[in-house]
Amino acid sequence: MPELPTLDPDDWEAVDRVFRRAVEVCLAQTRDVRDRPVWQPTPESIKAKLHEPLPRDGRPLEELLARFEETVLAFGTGNTHPRFWGWVHGSGNVAGVLGEMLAAFMNCNAGGRDHIATYVERQVVDWSKEIFGFPMTASGVLTTGTSMATLVALAVARDSRADADVQKQGVAAARRLVGYASAEVHRCVSKTFDLLGLGTEALRLVPVDGDDRMQIDQLAAMVEADAAQGHWPFVVIASAGTVNTGAIDDIEGISQFCRENDLWMHVDAAFGGLAVLTPEFRPQLAAMERAESIAFDFHKWLHVPYDAGCVLVRNADAHRRAFAARPGYLSGHTEGLAAGEPWYCDFGPELSRGFRALKVWFSLLAHGAERYGELISRNCAQARYLAALVEAHPDLELLAPVSLNIVCFRFVVPGWANDALDALNNRIVVELQTGGIAVTSTARIGGKTAIRVAITNHRTRTDDLDLLVAEVMRLGQAAARAGERARSGRAA
Amino acid sequence: MPELPTLDPDDWEAVDRVFRRAVEVCLAQTRDVRDRPVWQPTPESIKAKLHEPLPRDGRPLEELLARFEETVLAFGTGNTHPRFWGWVHGSGNVAGVLGEMLAAFMNCNAGGRDHIATYVERQVVDWSKEIFGFPMTASGVLTTGTSMATLVALAVARDSRADADVQKQGVAAARRLVGYASAEVHRCVSKTFDLLGLGTEALRLVPVDGDDRMQIDQLAAMVEADAAQGHWPFVVIASAGTVNTGAIDDIEGISQFCRENDLWMHVDAAFGGLAVLTPEFRPQLAAMERAESIAFDFHKWLHVPYDAGCVLVRNADAHRRAFAARPGYLSGHTEGLAAGEPWYCDFGPELSRGFRALKVWFSLLAHGAERYGELISRNCAQARYLAALVEAHPDLELLAPVSLNIVCFRFVVPGWANDALDALNNRIVVELQTGGIAVTSTARIGGKTAIRVAITNHRTRTDDLDLLVAEVMRLGQAAARAGERARSGRAA
Repeated sequence: MPELPTLDPDDWEAVDRVFRRAVEVCLAQTRDVRDRPVWQPTPESIKAKLHEPLPRDGRPLEELLARFEETVLAFGTGNTHPRFWGWVHGSGNVAGVLGEMLAAFMNCNAGGRDHIATYVERQVVDWSKEIFGFPMTASGVLTTGTSMATLVALAVARDSRADADVQKQGVAAARRLVGYASAEVHRCVSKTFDLLGLGTEALRLVPVDGDDRMQIDQLAAMVEADAAQGHWPFVVIASAGTVNTGAIDDIEGISQFCRENDLWMHVDAAFGGLAVLTPEFRPQLAAMERAESIAFDFHKWLHVPYDAGCVLVRNADAHRRAFAARPGYLSGHTEGLAAGEPWYCDFGPELSRGFRALKVWFSLLAHGAERYGELISRNCAQARYLAALVEAHPDLELLAPVSLNIVCFRFVVPGWANDALDALNNRIVVELQTGGIAVTSTARIGGKTAIRVAITNHRTRTDDLDLLVAEVMRLGQAAARAGERARSGRAA
Repeated sequence: MPELPTLDPDDWEAVDRVFRRAVEVCLAQTRDVRDRPVWQPTPESIKAKLHEPLPRDGRPLEELLARFEETVLAFGTGNTHPRFWGWVHGSGNVAGVLGEMLAAFMNCNAGGRDHIATYVERQVVDWSKEIFGFPMTASGVLTTGTSMATLVALAVARDSRADADVQKQGVAAARRLVGYASAEVHRCVSKTFDLLGLGTEALRLVPVDGDDRMQIDQLAAMVEADAAQGHWPFVVIASAGTVNTGAIDDIEGISQFCRENDLWMHVDAAFGGLAVLTPEFRPQLAAMERAESIAFDFHKWLHVPYDAGCVLVRNADAHRRAFAARPGYLSGHTEGLAAGEPWYCDFGPELSRGFRALKVWFSLLAHGAERYGELISRNCAQARYLAALVEAHPDLELLAPVSLNIVCFRFVVPGWANDALDALNNRIVVELQTGGIAVTSTARIGGKTAIRVAITNHRTRTDDLDLLVAEVMRLGQAAARAGERARSGRAA
């Protein structure tokens, strides 16, 4: 049989040179990120190049790197930039990049078996338990993010609380399972109800108070009404930082209600839960330690490169029962590579899994929990600073209280209708982005379009927020003048 | 407000040096992989080090790299080694590593919005359509692997075929959905039935023939029986390479049956489907192009670093309907970063997603489809070569026909009972592993424990298989002698 070439290079020195160049270029890009536009659109000419047929023949690595530098590197999401405050994105960190590269070289399959990826993941899961005050007897597994972590958590809750063996027989065999979350809950929770076969209508949305927090008396009334109808309330999802305004539910109160009513409390801690690392938010968040399950991200406020999230489950046996079903060919052995515990495929839906834990391990070791706590505190202080700037300014209106790190405000023009203001503020956000000045998103708050600034960014400085306000004023006033001219033109 | 330090380094030169060192070490490790043991157990002293409390303070990057080199690098899964044939693991490739590192630096969130990660992912999905003969109007999305790809595909199938709005109302509102797969189907399919609320019992396992292929007449009878009972048959999962023996279902026949009975054909193409890149397997696999959905991995036979899989769905609208439910804060815009199409979060459960496409893009461009096809052909030829060695040897027994790249055999001792042979062959596999000689797994084939060799490895040479056979003989004969001695000792 002919011995064909492998996928390995003939010239390893050349590969080393390509990696060195790549590191040099990317480190410079990261170091000088402040000098570049936050975001710029991908040119049509580059999009057109990404419509090639499947390559039949290979190309040299140095050519591919050059192509990457020309056509990919400059056109990313922008979330490594100090003035990126769109949605809730982490900013990345070089220790995490190093971990990701090393993991790719090692190419471990962290689904199970007796090798180091399992032990590093267990270490990272244990650290996560420590962060959230979970007992060391709890279980956990790394996921791509909170969406998948929520799927895992609610699958365990469903299977544990149903009054039938729904894993075998399906949910139709059980009394109708219903769950509860605030009206501000993240979309991934309702999507999970859909995927788990419960249906999105089985997720009851509890009204919020003026601070966007779940009203527990309303929750109680809804649970009672469902029970009276013969449904089977099984879970309450508490939000530790809602996506629109960063509101933190009364986790202590919800926890008590769940205990009294034998309900599973799951905490959506996607980003906000990590504020438990700060002294000022710890009191509001400490009751997370009484949850049955918690889902959160490493790639947001811990700035681990995308993607990395985690789920923790208090009852490790229930967690394992929901997912462990290894077929014969994966049966464990007591010796050799097929030994080892835990096998992380027993705690989630993925049998093949990357060594996602390594970039988290590098990030946490490189920076330490104290530094992370300080940076989270600073982002929240920056949000309050921005809110104060907004409140001090007659042309700006704060649209929601600042609970955490999210500021929702708008530019106002006296006498303008709401629709016109919505269009104006949308326009400001687009121009901030297309001008490469700053990335914010928009949100609808009480029927008004807000400029939404989510500060999850270790590179943001106070003067970046001063610049934001100045630019919003400049763009808003220009648009207002243009609008007035158009108006008087029409009137003339 | 005090300006705290960021997570960026003070000394960028030092970081550059750490990366250079890391690249140098890892490239040498990859280049010289043949000289190292395939696998070695993680020492207890190292496991013990991975029970630290949450780090409070950060550590310098060079110290972390040194720690990685001492305690992590040597203790991986082993699947980069030429004699790793355990389960079905890819071997990795340096172009993919480069792509992964660059993606980590860029730190894109590929959930949506108008940036390059979306366009690269679209390119990779288009290439995948080309590989499988899918129309360009089909949709697709990258996942962590086939397990998640299967969840996405069967969610679309469930939602499309149910006779009620199961997304809103749950599966209990619809007639009972049942699906079919061969008794040799991968475990992730039954797990998906569980997660989707249908229950594992709703997956009917169709008996296989002597070549481990689904019996289509039995499938027809089972579908008829279910329909007669008022159930709602909706999907047939065809296996393009079963996990135990690499058997390829009669995809053409299943496709015709599905067309005649209005059933959704999903193909589990996790690794075997990629053999469509070879002329010899193309005829058996070409009918995959008529599937409604296909799930497969890049991290197996395309050797992209873990983890990377993909799902393709013929009906893009159905795909989007099953997943697109963006809340207000993610509403698309026509301009700026919040514009762009597609948003990949509309095609799967994850809202935040890493730039997984970049390592696939680098791998496919670096090597090209021809080379991949040749390497897959070679692995299959190597499997036939090994099977011929086994058949030529009186002490070895081939336990299943070789359909693709998997060889199941055992060492036999005349006169020994089956239980004793099972124990003996398990022992051989453990000693191959612990001796660092080769990694194979075991499988149960017709009530017998097999040494299972899955050749998904671009570094394997023919003489590696010669060595395997020689070592199995050596270990088997030694164990047989020890067993005989113990037996005669007992008899004396």
